Amino acid sequence: MEPIRSFDELSVGQEFRFGTMAMPLDEVLDFARRWDPQPFHTDEARARESPYGGLIASGIHTLAAAFGHMLRTGFVEQVSMGGTGLEVRWPAPVRPGDEIAVSGRVEELTPSRSRPDRGAVKVRYTGTRVSDGAVVIEITATHIFKR
Amino acid sequence: MEPIRSFDELSVGQEFRFGTMAMPLDEVLDFARRWDPQPFHTDEARARESPYGGLIASGIHTLAAAFGHMLRTGFVEQVSMGGTGLEVRWPAPVRPGDEIAVSGRVEELTPSRSRPDRGAVKVRYTGTRVSDGAVVIEITATHIFKR
Repeated sequence: MEPIRSFDELSVGQEFRFGTMAMPLDEVLDFARRWDPQPFHTDEARARESPYGGLIASGIHTLAAAFGHMLRTGFVEQVSMGGTGLEVRWPAPVRPGDEIAVSGRVEELTPSRSRPDRGAVKVRYTGTRVSDGAVVIEITATHIFKR
Repeated sequence: MEPIRSFDELSVGQEFRFGTMAMPLDEVLDFARRWDPQPFHTDEARARESPYGGLIASGIHTLAAAFGHMLRTGFVEQVSMGGTGLEVRWPAPVRPGDEIAVSGRVEELTPSRSRPDRGAVKVRYTGTRVSDGAVVIEITATHIFKR
């Protein structure tokens, strides 16, 4: 995947594929114990009795994992100046062992009025479970990119 | 803080204070190296040359920390069946060493039509830096709570 070199290279509707990421059991448990200690994320026995019928990953873990996976491709390394916010939805639970394909689509490009060296880029990221095609996460993130 | 026992105990406009949380330097670095490896989160020297003039916490870290902090109060322990999505904004950067007060306000209550044992609760969480009163994170989360 070719890194972006400038905000001005992007166009609305552009799509990117970031490959797949794993959600191993030990990471599901570690993340949840530190940041999202709810029994359906941290305790196999109690998770079985929960409405989910077994362990599921913390949604914040899936968010962090998808975001970290995208960053590690180097895609935004030359342009990223951080972000101002995001929206996330979890349409289906993620199970330990799931493999998730991450893709992105440019939704909006807004050059900064006050700072000509940068612009806001709204990207919709989608995480799709490889085994059954279920969408497990949708993130709409607003990045600030250099021009 | 008294734990919620049912969706039906809540009312729109109710406010809750969850005390304060710390954002120590080692956690800022650890979280970012694993989940948000961008130089303004992971590398003090490069962060000084960035637009932020020094290290700032990953926004996803601040989100995870605020959420984990709220969970550890036990507030939602008896009712939480997970969440369906959230929106987050980071109006100001978080610096290592910041102490952040976390509060919540009930914004919307929607009993489930199909499942009489639960309802959706939209809560707006706010993180405010204690030293200067700056709002550093705003999260609007949709929880599913038992009735």
